[in-house]
Amino acid sequence: VVVIADEAVAALHATALVTSLRDAGKSVSLQVVPPGEESKVLSMAAMLYGRLLEHGVDRHDLIVALGGGVVCDLAGFVASTFLRGIPHLQVPTTTLAAIDATIGGKTALHAPFGKNLIGTTYPPKAVLIAGTHLASQPRREHTAGLVEALKLAATLDATLFDTIGREASRLLACAEPTLNVLRRAVVLKADLLGRHDFVAGERTVLSFGHCVGEAIEAGAEHRLLHGEAVALGMLAETEWAEAEGWCAGISGALATVVRALGLSNDWRACAIDERGIGGEAKRRGSNLRLAYVPRIGSHEVRTVPAAALIEFVRRRRTP
Amino acid sequence: VVVIADEAVAALHATALVTSLRDAGKSVSLQVVPPGEESKVLSMAAMLYGRLLEHGVDRHDLIVALGGGVVCDLAGFVASTFLRGIPHLQVPTTTLAAIDATIGGKTALHAPFGKNLIGTTYPPKAVLIAGTHLASQPRREHTAGLVEALKLAATLDATLFDTIGREASRLLACAEPTLNVLRRAVVLKADLLGRHDFVAGERTVLSFGHCVGEAIEAGAEHRLLHGEAVALGMLAETEWAEAEGWCAGISGALATVVRALGLSNDWRACAIDERGIGGEAKRRGSNLRLAYVPRIGSHEVRTVPAAALIEFVRRRRTP
Repeated sequence: VVVIADEAVAALHATALVTSLRDAGKSVSLQVVPPGEESKVLSMAAMLYGRLLEHGVDRHDLIVALGGGVVCDLAGFVASTFLRGIPHLQVPTTTLAAIDATIGGKTALHAPFGKNLIGTTYPPKAVLIAGTHLASQPRREHTAGLVEALKLAATLDATLFDTIGREASRLLACAEPTLNVLRRAVVLKADLLGRHDFVAGERTVLSFGHCVGEAIEAGAEHRLLHGEAVALGMLAETEWAEAEGWCAGISGALATVVRALGLSNDWRACAIDERGIGGEAKRRGSNLRLAYVPRIGSHEVRTVPAAALIEFVRRRRTP
Repeated sequence: VVVIADEAVAALHATALVTSLRDAGKSVSLQVVPPGEESKVLSMAAMLYGRLLEHGVDRHDLIVALGGGVVCDLAGFVASTFLRGIPHLQVPTTTLAAIDATIGGKTALHAPFGKNLIGTTYPPKAVLIAGTHLASQPRREHTAGLVEALKLAATLDATLFDTIGREASRLLACAEPTLNVLRRAVVLKADLLGRHDFVAGERTVLSFGHCVGEAIEAGAEHRLLHGEAVALGMLAETEWAEAEGWCAGISGALATVVRALGLSNDWRACAIDERGIGGEAKRRGSNLRLAYVPRIGSHEVRTVPAAALIEFVRRRRTP
């Protein structure tokens, strides 16, 4: 078993994991990489290939990714490309990685010219989420990660949406219902990807909040976490859908839960990089594919003119 | 469309391919890499990622691998890992690549510590084999490539075996039945891999001739091509199977076709690296999985003690 972790996570959690694997009779090696996005590159993968070879790792061995999105993406890429693929487990230590990086089998590295441009689709054998791991992440990261669960709830599961709203304070403290909420979110996402794995259009539900959210994230110049920007994006897009008459009363329910999670709901006050609205992935020429919520727990997808959404955002902003 | 070729193949065939793609209305870029195994490395993949990004390649675009095994493996790896996989075609220009590198979706790069240790399983959308391409390869390479077809014929298809024996001289000249023989070999191999893709044991048929052949290849210190060594290995392994009483009269039929292809059948005179007999992939502890031919066009697999095969080879050699 080769455990891959960054220095920060290794210091907190590697000893317990390595010890329990050794107690179970496994031969274990720990490979530590520097923390941060800089580790999600081809040269780090090459370093890890070398370590795997030094340890004589073969197809019967196992890679364990212990960490946040960076380590899950990096270790997953290495597992998918070493000896044409060896088994791996994901042990996400952040809420976002638990719901996002580990499901659907996306692995990724950054290229010199752009983020996440190198990668494979290679599902882990299992995703193991531990409350002790989640409790050690910065509170703000945890909250931003919960937005991913909220997005899935709003578009797919009204019961989960109610639970998140009702239990918000306990979720923020990583208390009792947290693992249940995450498990449900993981199942929702895995089902969605399993059903529609290669039908790009059907994945659009996962981009709810991203058409505007990514433009808010760009406008904030790294002062907002991805989840914080997506929460604002979900509100903006929903208000547009309401203004267009496609739904009613949704933005209010969403804003209530967003506030209960301690997040801002004031997207109007944000700097927004308009060129980023409905970035590359969602564009189809001058149109974009937009997911919205007709009723809490369901979703629809429309092809809409990007210019109309941009105009709406521009008009409503109160910077 | 991004065509990837090495300098030698590009000089011979790139203009015709690029022109015909452009005539079909495609926007085409040609990316040339140095010839030889040295190009099958991560740094070359990184260079190609950069070129793809410069050209704004996305998931709707196409990579075309034009060349032998090195370029097919390299371009396949790049296609499988760029944007989590974009479509690619293989246009093999050598006989070996036509039957071997392009089928089953194996892609591979060399690592600093070993060959083909980095890779993915990622089938091309199509494999396009052109007689004009095959006719331009060195005759010796073509002959060695035909051994792969002979191996498939001996273990899976008696009719193909007869055809190869009967048409040997025309096959050697890349004349009329060559593409039909290769098409049949490709179908046999693709069926085999499609049926048993991840059942390692069932792939053992593909290693017929390799337990001893790879030891002969190692003993020859690069003076033999892989196919030449496998032909000798098939004969040695078959003679052992006959000595053990598992089959009869097969080695004579095999030797006749091997000679008709202009290849040596005298494995007894070869230098053989005994440590290489049944190398890593076929070993199970002190045993190895050996495929043999009970009747032409069929195969069986046995788990046998490596020492017994080594002893047989040692005794029969007449160096």
